[in-house]
Amino acid sequence: MSAAARTVELAALNQSARAEFVAALDGIFENAPWVAEAVHGQRPFADLPRLMEAFAATIGSAGAKRQRALIEGHPDLAGKAARAGELTAASAAEQSSAGLDRLSPEEFDRFHRLNNSYRARFDFPFIVCVRRHGKESILAQFERRLANDAETERRTALAEILRIAALRLDQRITGADRLKVNGRLSTHVLDTHRGRPAHGVAVELAELAGAGEARVIAGGTTNADGRTDTPLIGGRPVPIARYELRFHLGAYYAGLGVSQADPPFLDVVPIRFAVAEPEGHYHVPLLATPWGYTTYRGS
Amino acid sequence: MSAAARTVELAALNQSARAEFVAALDGIFENAPWVAEAVHGQRPFADLPRLMEAFAATIGSAGAKRQRALIEGHPDLAGKAARAGELTAASAAEQSSAGLDRLSPEEFDRFHRLNNSYRARFDFPFIVCVRRHGKESILAQFERRLANDAETERRTALAEILRIAALRLDQRITGADRLKVNGRLSTHVLDTHRGRPAHGVAVELAELAGAGEARVIAGGTTNADGRTDTPLIGGRPVPIARYELRFHLGAYYAGLGVSQADPPFLDVVPIRFAVAEPEGHYHVPLLATPWGYTTYRGS
Amino acid sequence: MSAAARTVELAALNQSARAEFVAALDGIFENAPWVAEAVHGQRPFADLPRLMEAFAATIGSAGAKRQRALIEGHPDLAGKAARAGELTAASAAEQSSAGLDRLSPEEFDRFHRLNNSYRARFDFPFIVCVRRHGKESILAQFERRLANDAETERRTALAEILRIAALRLDQRITGADRLKVNGRLSTHVLDTHRGRPAHGVAVELAELAGAGEARVIAGGTTNADGRTDTPLIGGRPVPIARYELRFHLGAYYAGLGVSQADPPFLDVVPIRFAVAEPEGHYHVPLLATPWGYTTYRGS
Amino acid sequence: MSAAARTVELAALNQSARAEFVAALDGIFENAPWVAEAVHGQRPFADLPRLMEAFAATIGSAGAKRQRALIEGHPDLAGKAARAGELTAASAAEQSSAGLDRLSPEEFDRFHRLNNSYRARFDFPFIVCVRRHGKESILAQFERRLANDAETERRTALAEILRIAALRLDQRITGADRLKVNGRLSTHVLDTHRGRPAHGVAVELAELAGAGEARVIAGGTTNADGRTDTPLIGGRPVPIARYELRFHLGAYYAGLGVSQADPPFLDVVPIRFAVAEPEGHYHVPLLATPWGYTTYRGS
Repeated sequence: MSAAARTVELAALNQSARAEFVAALDGIFENAPWVAEAVHGQRPFADLPRLMEAFAATIGSAGAKRQRALIEGHPDLAGKAARAGELTAASAAEQSSAGLDRLSPEEFDRFHRLNNSYRARFDFPFIVCVRRHGKESILAQFERRLANDAETERRTALAEILRIAALRLDQRITGADRLKVNGRLSTHVLDTHRGRPAHGVAVELAELAGAGEARVIAGGTTNADGRTDTPLIGGRPVPIARYELRFHLGAYYAGLGVSQADPPFLDVVPIRFAVAEPEGHYHVPLLATPWGYTTYRGS
Repeated sequence: MSAAARTVELAALNQSARAEFVAALDGIFENAPWVAEAVHGQRPFADLPRLMEAFAATIGSAGAKRQRALIEGHPDLAGKAARAGELTAASAAEQSSAGLDRLSPEEFDRFHRLNNSYRARFDFPFIVCVRRHGKESILAQFERRLANDAETERRTALAEILRIAALRLDQRITGADRLKVNGRLSTHVLDTHRGRPAHGVAVELAELAGAGEARVIAGGTTNADGRTDTPLIGGRPVPIARYELRFHLGAYYAGLGVSQADPPFLDVVPIRFAVAEPEGHYHVPLLATPWGYTTYRGS
Repeated sequence: MSAAARTVELAALNQSARAEFVAALDGIFENAPWVAEAVHGQRPFADLPRLMEAFAATIGSAGAKRQRALIEGHPDLAGKAARAGELTAASAAEQSSAGLDRLSPEEFDRFHRLNNSYRARFDFPFIVCVRRHGKESILAQFERRLANDAETERRTALAEILRIAALRLDQRITGADRLKVNGRLSTHVLDTHRGRPAHGVAVELAELAGAGEARVIAGGTTNADGRTDTPLIGGRPVPIARYELRFHLGAYYAGLGVSQADPPFLDVVPIRFAVAEPEGHYHVPLLATPWGYTTYRGS
Repeated sequence: MSAAARTVELAALNQSARAEFVAALDGIFENAPWVAEAVHGQRPFADLPRLMEAFAATIGSAGAKRQRALIEGHPDLAGKAARAGELTAASAAEQSSAGLDRLSPEEFDRFHRLNNSYRARFDFPFIVCVRRHGKESILAQFERRLANDAETERRTALAEILRIAALRLDQRITGADRLKVNGRLSTHVLDTHRGRPAHGVAVELAELAGAGEARVIAGGTTNADGRTDTPLIGGRPVPIARYELRFHLGAYYAGLGVSQADPPFLDVVPIRFAVAEPEGHYHVPLLATPWGYTTYRGS
């Protein structure tokens, strides 16, 4: 069953019988249909936040044994299940979005060691909402959380399970206002040499990792308003990561016949920045002439 | 004899007998003591520009045979002589400054092929004042000049020989105003969050080449006035090349205890630019807060 | 009959009988109902541009005598009729918007002399679409157009009559896309000291004229997004004039408890600029810290 | 005796007999030759700071009666003595530099009332080092100090007397390093449209006061390096005041034939700022294109 086929209207969900309701919410929680079953009686849900609150209350009062089973229903990150193709479709897509299916042997070993240390310390798998993180940030989370005490970490794992659920739910349910689980990364190029939006500037967005790794994840060309037609990242969380925006300014001014040095003083302008709030709006504009520029976190 | 030992006062040079005069100017022109000999009778020289004019006039009127011998007295760029350690000390230092002694096998082959093409076309070695160029720019010059006709190229080679001589002369002769053969590359960091110069920002300058090659060639930490104590490049031409300045802004604001995001929105700020005039003054300042910055070609 | 009461749906207009049609368009052209009468037979008009085209064609082919009568149906600018309160309501509102009802005796005399010179030269009243101009710009137009030849000036006067009509029509007719006769003047304040929109900055817009005259014409306080809730000028042409935006930055940072000098280095920040295209979008943002700022024509 | 004629070498001063020494320092303290007499025995003074320290120690230990006489030897600010031309030459020049000889009747009355209140409260004249203040700042000082208790105010008056003396001494004594009593106000215009210093931009500096008063106090035209040939204020304290720098940018770009709107978007660019440290260096640059600009407190 394709992901697209599985969307369901909130109104329809609210009128579903128990079996239908549980099927419609299948996979929102990994291997745990009991969560959906438990909230069926609370229908109708006025909106998605109420449904998420019902999920959170159910899990919060479920008792230690069920909570532990819920946690253990999740796969290791970048683990053997991933290599063997045994993940649920949702888990596979999420791990891929963070690049966990493209690890080098060294990185795979590092995840393997961290998974083992984590299991040895807490006796359950490491769970993190990977769609909110880049690869570097996941490793940082891993190491930070290894220092937690058991109770703090149990609560952290349940909170991450609810974040994962919220993102899945936001894509599954239609006919309702979106949950505030998505962020945005956008840009805007102003040509202050000519006093108008810069039309036709090629832009790339790369995610940076480690020493020198740069993976281009989005791109486009500015339109007559100086913006890309769609945000560089939108409709999803902006992963906590370091980024580099690259503006092909030299080619833009060459195309306009504007006098530049040879070679041009500015050619590809790189802006490096980090995202800390995946649900935030990051607007990173460029005000440029052939001889200088300004950038800032805008809104 | 060390380079330092060989400096000579202009006043002393002006009073030298012929043999002493020629010895003092040994190597200003590669394997061509006749140029110094020919101008000895025109002493005294009021300043270095007059001495350079005398050199230029002597070479310009020397006749085709001597001009050709002068050109042929130069080694191939990045050629076998370089590999075998058979260059004059001056040539070796100059080729090293442009990185021609650190070529990869592929680059060495590319120079080898260009040298061969050039010799086949013009029947003399390719001469360029390498201290005015980075590696990429030398290759660009090579390819551009292969398209010249023979007469243009002969004049270009002689002009480059005079540029090489001027730089050597400027380092050899003391007690006179410098020739205008040197440029400067400097920076300045203003902390517009606090309204004062940024003191203690680590800065690196890398020369860029090819796809992804970045060689750190200078660095420092800003002083109380927001500047490095000495220019990043000074007292020499600024090679025609692409550069990246890197400002360690995140560490600077962290050291001051200024509130930043986690990770900080800006950490290492890269400014990429190209130099087109080796004798120019390139001042590339940064006006920064933790949330944005401005840069430009200043003065 | 109030202006608001006279709006009419385009669909209703298209179905009107001749008398009703002419009444609905009364005053679009000053004292010239024949223009509306002439286009009645061309109904229905798909949109406002088609209606304007029909008006333009009618006037263009009307013959010299009717064209002259149309021109002569207009009052003098800032003339005796204005002082005596004898203008049509539309003319009075338009002249007031440009400040022509608040002239000093010296300015009134200057208009009087220009009106006389113009009449002496062209034998008809000076007509300009005053909603597109500030007082200074009207005077500049007056002087510039006095240098025209008679034929050029006759065509210019008819073109201005069509501009006046378009603005009146755009306010009169509902149920149709707007004509592109309006511009916009907006601002946006980014606090680059704190990396977020500046919320709560008082802003004023003054129109400048002559030596030192500054009339505050709009104002507001920035909202959580750093913008005023409505554009400073919108839904009308932005008069060709010089302006000063004033941002109360010192009070904003004082309110936040941000450390400033005493007195603060920046307090009220003035940005002076001129508008040249009344139908354009002028976005004039401020990126500010307590120690510096950037502004530019944005979009 | 003219001010210029009275300069004296520190070396000569150090060798002076008592009468000569006192004469050379005449007027450093207003009507109080005893201060110079008291320090004569401590010659030689290695530098000006040592001489100032000796003055301060002498006054500090002089006893209440002599201190009061010293204070009472000063004229009222903008008082009757000023109107009647009865000030010492030094006092007259200082009061003039702050504009206290150009008061409107209303301002004169305000000073008169403040002088009376101050005398009524403290029984001695108000003393302030006027060369460190603009007119507004003097009035602010006046009102602030009226709230002091008697002992605090007595010490404040003596401290101001030493500030006045230091400035007079710095102009009187030659052949020694300057005291750090002077500040500087400078500017720099970068043309980021063309990537070079802006040569030929007319600049004015006005001191602002009250509601709308603006007095042009300095000006110049930028040279090839984008700076005025001399600082706008230098070799003296920069008065605590509000200022407006005005850059004639529209005329500059018009002169270069750079395409601008009609009227130009930017014409005269005003930068308003305040000075809080009279001994500081205020560098206020402009980075400009015809469509935007950046300014900041630089160094």
